[in-house]
Amino acid sequence: MRIAVLTSGGDAPGMNAAIRAVTRTAIYKGMEILGVKRGYLGLMNGDFTKLNSRSVGSILSTGGTILLTARAPEFKTKEGIQKAIQSLKENSIDALVVIGGNGTQTGSYYLHKEGIPVVGIASTIDNDVFGTQRTIGFDTALNNAVGAIDKIRDTATSHQRVFVVEVMGRNRGILALNCGIAVGADAIIIPEKTFNIPELSIRIKENFERGKKHFIVVLAEGAAKAEKFADALFLLDGIKASVSVLGYLQRGGNPTFEDRFLATNFGVKAVEMVEKKKFGVVVGIQNNEMTLIDMKQVANGVKPINEKLFDVQKFLSI
Amino acid sequence: MRIAVLTSGGDAPGMNAAIRAVTRTAIYKGMEILGVKRGYLGLMNGDFTKLNSRSVGSILSTGGTILLTARAPEFKTKEGIQKAIQSLKENSIDALVVIGGNGTQTGSYYLHKEGIPVVGIASTIDNDVFGTQRTIGFDTALNNAVGAIDKIRDTATSHQRVFVVEVMGRNRGILALNCGIAVGADAIIIPEKTFNIPELSIRIKENFERGKKHFIVVLAEGAAKAEKFADALFLLDGIKASVSVLGYLQRGGNPTFEDRFLATNFGVKAVEMVEKKKFGVVVGIQNNEMTLIDMKQVANGVKPINEKLFDVQKFLSI
Amino acid sequence: MRIAVLTSGGDAPGMNAAIRAVTRTAIYKGMEILGVKRGYLGLMNGDFTKLNSRSVGSILSTGGTILLTARAPEFKTKEGIQKAIQSLKENSIDALVVIGGNGTQTGSYYLHKEGIPVVGIASTIDNDVFGTQRTIGFDTALNNAVGAIDKIRDTATSHQRVFVVEVMGRNRGILALNCGIAVGADAIIIPEKTFNIPELSIRIKENFERGKKHFIVVLAEGAAKAEKFADALFLLDGIKASVSVLGYLQRGGNPTFEDRFLATNFGVKAVEMVEKKKFGVVVGIQNNEMTLIDMKQVANGVKPINEKLFDVQKFLSI
Amino acid sequence: MRIAVLTSGGDAPGMNAAIRAVTRTAIYKGMEILGVKRGYLGLMNGDFTKLNSRSVGSILSTGGTILLTARAPEFKTKEGIQKAIQSLKENSIDALVVIGGNGTQTGSYYLHKEGIPVVGIASTIDNDVFGTQRTIGFDTALNNAVGAIDKIRDTATSHQRVFVVEVMGRNRGILALNCGIAVGADAIIIPEKTFNIPELSIRIKENFERGKKHFIVVLAEGAAKAEKFADALFLLDGIKASVSVLGYLQRGGNPTFEDRFLATNFGVKAVEMVEKKKFGVVVGIQNNEMTLIDMKQVANGVKPINEKLFDVQKFLSI
Repeated sequence: MRIAVLTSGGDAPGMNAAIRAVTRTAIYKGMEILGVKRGYLGLMNGDFTKLNSRSVGSILSTGGTILLTARAPEFKTKEGIQKAIQSLKENSIDALVVIGGNGTQTGSYYLHKEGIPVVGIASTIDNDVFGTQRTIGFDTALNNAVGAIDKIRDTATSHQRVFVVEVMGRNRGILALNCGIAVGADAIIIPEKTFNIPELSIRIKENFERGKKHFIVVLAEGAAKAEKFADALFLLDGIKASVSVLGYLQRGGNPTFEDRFLATNFGVKAVEMVEKKKFGVVVGIQNNEMTLIDMKQVANGVKPINEKLFDVQKFLSI
Repeated sequence: MRIAVLTSGGDAPGMNAAIRAVTRTAIYKGMEILGVKRGYLGLMNGDFTKLNSRSVGSILSTGGTILLTARAPEFKTKEGIQKAIQSLKENSIDALVVIGGNGTQTGSYYLHKEGIPVVGIASTIDNDVFGTQRTIGFDTALNNAVGAIDKIRDTATSHQRVFVVEVMGRNRGILALNCGIAVGADAIIIPEKTFNIPELSIRIKENFERGKKHFIVVLAEGAAKAEKFADALFLLDGIKASVSVLGYLQRGGNPTFEDRFLATNFGVKAVEMVEKKKFGVVVGIQNNEMTLIDMKQVANGVKPINEKLFDVQKFLSI
Repeated sequence: MRIAVLTSGGDAPGMNAAIRAVTRTAIYKGMEILGVKRGYLGLMNGDFTKLNSRSVGSILSTGGTILLTARAPEFKTKEGIQKAIQSLKENSIDALVVIGGNGTQTGSYYLHKEGIPVVGIASTIDNDVFGTQRTIGFDTALNNAVGAIDKIRDTATSHQRVFVVEVMGRNRGILALNCGIAVGADAIIIPEKTFNIPELSIRIKENFERGKKHFIVVLAEGAAKAEKFADALFLLDGIKASVSVLGYLQRGGNPTFEDRFLATNFGVKAVEMVEKKKFGVVVGIQNNEMTLIDMKQVANGVKPINEKLFDVQKFLSI
Repeated sequence: MRIAVLTSGGDAPGMNAAIRAVTRTAIYKGMEILGVKRGYLGLMNGDFTKLNSRSVGSILSTGGTILLTARAPEFKTKEGIQKAIQSLKENSIDALVVIGGNGTQTGSYYLHKEGIPVVGIASTIDNDVFGTQRTIGFDTALNNAVGAIDKIRDTATSHQRVFVVEVMGRNRGILALNCGIAVGADAIIIPEKTFNIPELSIRIKENFERGKKHFIVVLAEGAAKAEKFADALFLLDGIKASVSVLGYLQRGGNPTFEDRFLATNFGVKAVEMVEKKKFGVVVGIQNNEMTLIDMKQVANGVKPINEKLFDVQKFLSI
């Protein structure tokens, strides 16, 4: 048996650990394993590379993806899909393992519908894949954000200032909401929830009167841009806030325990599914067990946010 | 209503976050809240201190426990329990929240059997509390251990050496097993599983022949002491191994996202249980939801290890 | 003897370690010690607080400043200085220790000229204080920036992208230049040195042709804003660059060894100078020895940059 | 011109950064560059490998040494030296760059005396090379130790315990002394200074009486083994101390800013010396400038400790 593995979409810490797990499990089980460079772009162009145990020898603890990733708008077209299928055939690939988030797995689903044997692995720092509690990269991104905001809090406290900190999340606020709880944010603003600046301004003023030394707003980029949010606070209510946009540093760095652990188990599970010819599924985790999610559901489902966390935030920011 | 909170047993990163959550939720809900110093020792001696929102103002991100902890063998006696009960009455405490691991919650169970309204919060770096997937402190301890072993791997690789790394776990190997997966250990030795030194020696030799640059054994202290294990490797098979005992650094440091998140949610849930007069339970997590475990079960149950991880380890250490 | 200590200007990691050293050394030597809250603002308003050994008991390893800091434009006026002098007299302060950077020590110099016994301690993440090789906070800020850029490099490599990373340095590029060397920046842009975008564009293209997987520009905020710099790259030469502004996270966090070490030694030295009635000087380091810089020189001198580092950068970015 | 580079002795974080700097500077200057595997062992056995710009492309931020290192007792013999010289001739090596500490540079000196053109680079976590303020690896090792002890302090404080922490330093206490200052050690024990256990015991007791929550002894391994030291405290004075041996984790991990910076500048300087045919010297740093130390002095000189730091420690541990 001869399988291929690729990473696509935004890079996430732990992708390398997943590549390692897929590669070594495949070899352990007597399969041949190829890596596809630059995700779907490389798949369309036939950019394959042979993998062996040593070529994944020191990547368990590294961020990014050794297989690289790239934008591939062409893959969304009929011609793109056909090019990819052609390339899989030319290289005699029996099954494909695809590591990535929602956009990527929607691509997997296209391939699956065309009869290609595909298994997905849920990997994105946004943790917005339907049907899995966690995705590879979420925990590291959270810890990166938490670590950065801990540092910012030192300045916020020393200067007794309001800070608006923008974290990643173009469409969803899952990262921002979780991060906000862990840093003790005084307010959390996400796209899934309306917010009210005058109300917030009142809370800010009350907080400083009650003796708080700082007020930290954690803001998902999808809800508002930090700079504009701070402008609104000033224009509406005269509150001066400092701004920090965490940006790319959230997605890099050595993966945490959790992301290495998930990535390793997801990778093993994916190859086991290949072995059992169980295709059209994305590997995730539910209730501490590896689980399989139908690709169609991943492509169409929307993961809910945990509303309870807003209560938690409210109780604790007193 | 007037409640008290204490931490007992080994300190775990995130205990402070739990104290903060209990304190602020209690205040939010109109309760009065006291801290007990030095766990059951302070409880027997009536060592209470008033807590308010500001007194837990900067502890979310700090390791250890501001309420301190201590050994209290006397608490295991009938007299000890009675002293504690007396002290709770004298201070007009309506309910007690106890943060700690198995030993500590066994103590909670004694109090509960005597009619004291107690709610427990599962907190120990060992993650060996029955009925919860995770305990406060486990994730930070794991990341501490993983970070330390990543560093040791640099030396192992540079010198092409065998290393035996001893991680915490006097009775259980849950920490060692999980840690071993995340660092790509070449062997994992835990008390729950027999091991065979001659077999291991053969694998070590084969690995170096196959081109591996190091061989790392992760060993739970409860299975064997690292120094003796390395001696055995040398005496039986002439293999020279370097030894590292990670020790106390595993239990300290700023808690990770996960431990702050668990601790915060556990703390809120515990006070909600107090409010609902639901006593005799320990707060944990199952299937991503806060859960309640009967104290009797915590006192008597044994958490199983995840046997599947040995397969994972076997596949990946090629 | 009765002395006071304050921190002013931007907070820098290690300021707390300096406060601790000043406090404990003063106490050891039998002096009384007060802290001034919010820098020169608090000094003008007489906002003093008594310090003892325990009040600085756990601050060695924390970022920010427990004495707080604030903007105090009034202090630059004649009236402001007189208010400060008045307040020092009313509180019977025999000598003042001032922890901060160039702006702050210029303030010290004003007080010194008015006859106030002052000793300064060089502390700023910019390391732009004349006459000292290092200032408190520089090493931590550098390590924060280096750590963040290491993470960004994972994404840059995975996507084979150009990145423009903006680091702190409103007037000076010392931080950017040093940071750039340590992250292996492909170009370093600082205010002290002219730059040429078309030339840079050619180098970027050549680098990718030579097989480099990323191109990282480290940019001091005082040279150009990252967003505009990236726009120029695109408009002039069609190069798409991702942007990251590191911002406030550079100045926070637990101080590194170096900053704790400097802060501790600077603090001890400052109190020794008070004891010896050696005033009007700022404590710094030269040639691994604590040194004294005349306040006038600090107020007026401009620290040169190390030009050799541009050669180093040129040799190594091949 | 054709040069070779090797690393020998204990690995130190930053060695890879030095290899990168030597390699790229050599290539920039038109030289050919080879790496020697496993230090002097590989040199004797002719284990050379070609290096180019890409082969050092991602090692600036990694610990350990990609050229590996090994014990080579044979190199200390006349025959060993001759084998090495023979191997250099067979491979037409015009000059050799040797990265390592005292033992390694003593080896360089042997080669130099035999007429081999050698330049050394001072690299050891012990910082005990005569004539340089800093060696590559010292700063990272210090930060590793400081980080670990910060974590241990959480437990020490929570349990109000005495801790004896053993740090590296078989012959010298430079690491322990500097580390002790930065963690606020209550006592620092190093081989260069006599110590007195009964006196220490009295101080421990006084400290707890004065309200300190922990007492941390930082101990260089060359002064005493931590376990025995703790036994002595207990047997002589009944003081129970917990023990932690930091061990190998001190020498690994991503190098800090300082070590990357030193390594990069040392590497550039070493190749410049090769170019200028200035041999028999070790590159170090003095007064913020790259400096050259005569190899004979390195082989024979003993770096003094900074006695002033004992005063600093005494003032601050009140």
